[in-house]
Amino acid sequence: MAERKVYLVGAGPGDPELLTLRAWRILQRAEVVLYDRLVSAEVLACVNPRALLVDVGKHEGQQCEVQRQIVPLLIAYHAQYTTVVRLKSGDPMVFARGAEELEELAAAGVSVEVVPGISSSFAGPALAGIPLTYRGVARHFTIVTGHGRDGVLQDWRAIAGVDTLIILMGVKARVEIAQALRRAGRPAAEPCAFLERVSTPTERRVFATLGDVAAGRVEVEAPAVWVQGEVVALAASNGLCLGAQAAAALPGARLA
Amino acid sequence: MAERKVYLVGAGPGDPELLTLRAWRILQRAEVVLYDRLVSAEVLACVNPRALLVDVGKHEGQQCEVQRQIVPLLIAYHAQYTTVVRLKSGDPMVFARGAEELEELAAAGVSVEVVPGISSSFAGPALAGIPLTYRGVARHFTIVTGHGRDGVLQDWRAIAGVDTLIILMGVKARVEIAQALRRAGRPAAEPCAFLERVSTPTERRVFATLGDVAAGRVEVEAPAVWVQGEVVALAASNGLCLGAQAAAALPGARLA
Repeated sequence: MAERKVYLVGAGPGDPELLTLRAWRILQRAEVVLYDRLVSAEVLACVNPRALLVDVGKHEGQQCEVQRQIVPLLIAYHAQYTTVVRLKSGDPMVFARGAEELEELAAAGVSVEVVPGISSSFAGPALAGIPLTYRGVARHFTIVTGHGRDGVLQDWRAIAGVDTLIILMGVKARVEIAQALRRAGRPAAEPCAFLERVSTPTERRVFATLGDVAAGRVEVEAPAVWVQGEVVALAASNGLCLGAQAAAALPGARLA
Repeated sequence: MAERKVYLVGAGPGDPELLTLRAWRILQRAEVVLYDRLVSAEVLACVNPRALLVDVGKHEGQQCEVQRQIVPLLIAYHAQYTTVVRLKSGDPMVFARGAEELEELAAAGVSVEVVPGISSSFAGPALAGIPLTYRGVARHFTIVTGHGRDGVLQDWRAIAGVDTLIILMGVKARVEIAQALRRAGRPAAEPCAFLERVSTPTERRVFATLGDVAAGRVEVEAPAVWVQGEVVALAASNGLCLGAQAAAALPGARLA
C-alpha cells in the first residue's frame, strides 16, 4: 500500500519516452492528476486511465485566479486519495511555481515528494546537437525566463556576460529582449536558435542571429527554448538529424 | 530489428528511477556500454546482463589518455554491434565532452542518437527542496564547472551578478572559488549548499555560507553540486524530508 502523498512531478519536455521511470510509475497508479497547459497529450496518455484528470493550465489573463485554486484543490484531493499528482512540464522546480506550491502544501501538513524532470532547456539543445558548454567557446550557461510574473526581465546587464543564455518563455518579448542584449554588449552576429515544441512530432528549429531577432525579422511560435551564444554555431556540423530520429520514435511504445 | 547506432545516453544523477524510459529501454538491449566513473552501480545494474561493460572512467592524471581512446573504441564496437551505448552521468551534453564525442562520431559516419538525462545540477536542488528561481529572490541561475579542462575558471566576475550559481566539480577548488566570488562582490553571509552524491542512498547535504567556504571552514566530499545564492535559505522551510523519501525508494524495483 503506497503512502498517502502529493507528488510534484516533472513531465519532461513532451516526448513520454523522456519521462523518468519514477514519474511513469507514479502516473500509472495516480488517482488524480492536476496538469499544466504545456504537458503533452502523449504524456497524459501515460496516466492511469481511471484517474481524474484536472486541467489547471493557465490561459492568458486568468493566471492568478487559477494559481490560487491549485493548492486548495491538491489539499482537498489529498484528503480523499492516496496518490495525487501535480504534473508540470519540464522540471517542477524550475520557473514553475513548484517551490511555492511545495511550501504551501508542507505548511498544510501534506506529505510531498518531488520527482525531477528533464527541462526543455536541456533537452532542446541536446536533441538539436547544441552543446551548452564547449572547450574554448562556452564555459557557463544561464537559464532565465523572458517573461515571468515580475514582467519582462529588465536587468539583462547582470547576465549579459554569460557565455550561453537559455531563455524560456521569451518568444513574445523576443525583440525587446534581443535589443536589451545588444545594448548590454552582445554582438549582432551572435547566432541563436529557437527550439519550438521540443521533443514532440512537430518540433521545429529556427536558426538566426541576435541582430535579426532585435530587428524583428525572426518568426517563432511559442513555446520555444531560445539558445543564444556561439555554441549554436556548433549545431550545424552535427545536429539536425538527431532530433528527427528521436522524434521519429514518437509516440513511444508502452513499457513491456 | 533496431537500427545500428551509437547512443549517447544520460544516466541521470544516480538513482536508477531517475533514468528516462528511453535510456532504460536502450540499456536493456545494449550490447556494449562504455561508462564513466560517476555512473552509479544501481544504474549499471539496469544494463542488459549479457552486455560488455567497459569502464572508461577517468582517474586523476590519466584523463587525456583515456579520452583519446573512447571514440576509437566506440567506432570499433559500432562495426561489430547494433546497440553501442556511451553512458554518462547526468546529461550527456553538459560538461561531459558529449558534444566533442558526437562530432567525432558523426565525422566518422556513425549514426548517433542523443538521449538527454537529468543533470544533478537540477535534481540535487529539487530533491533538497531548493528552488533555483523564486519570485523576489532569484530570477536566473547559471551552471558552471569549478574545474574544467581549461583549469579553474578565472573570470568569476562575468557570472557573479547571476542570482543563483550552480557549480559542478567545484569541491576541490572551493576555497579559491569562494574567495573569487567574494572579491567579485557576493556577500559573505550568502547561504550555500553542497549536495553530495545526489539521489543515492548515501546522499548528504552540507549547508554553509560563502564566507565559511572562503575561510576554508567547510568540509565537503566530491562529487557534490554546489548551490550558491539566497534561494538556499528557502530549503530549510520545506526541504529536508523530501530527498530522504526519494532515497528510501532505492534501489528501485525493476519495471513490471
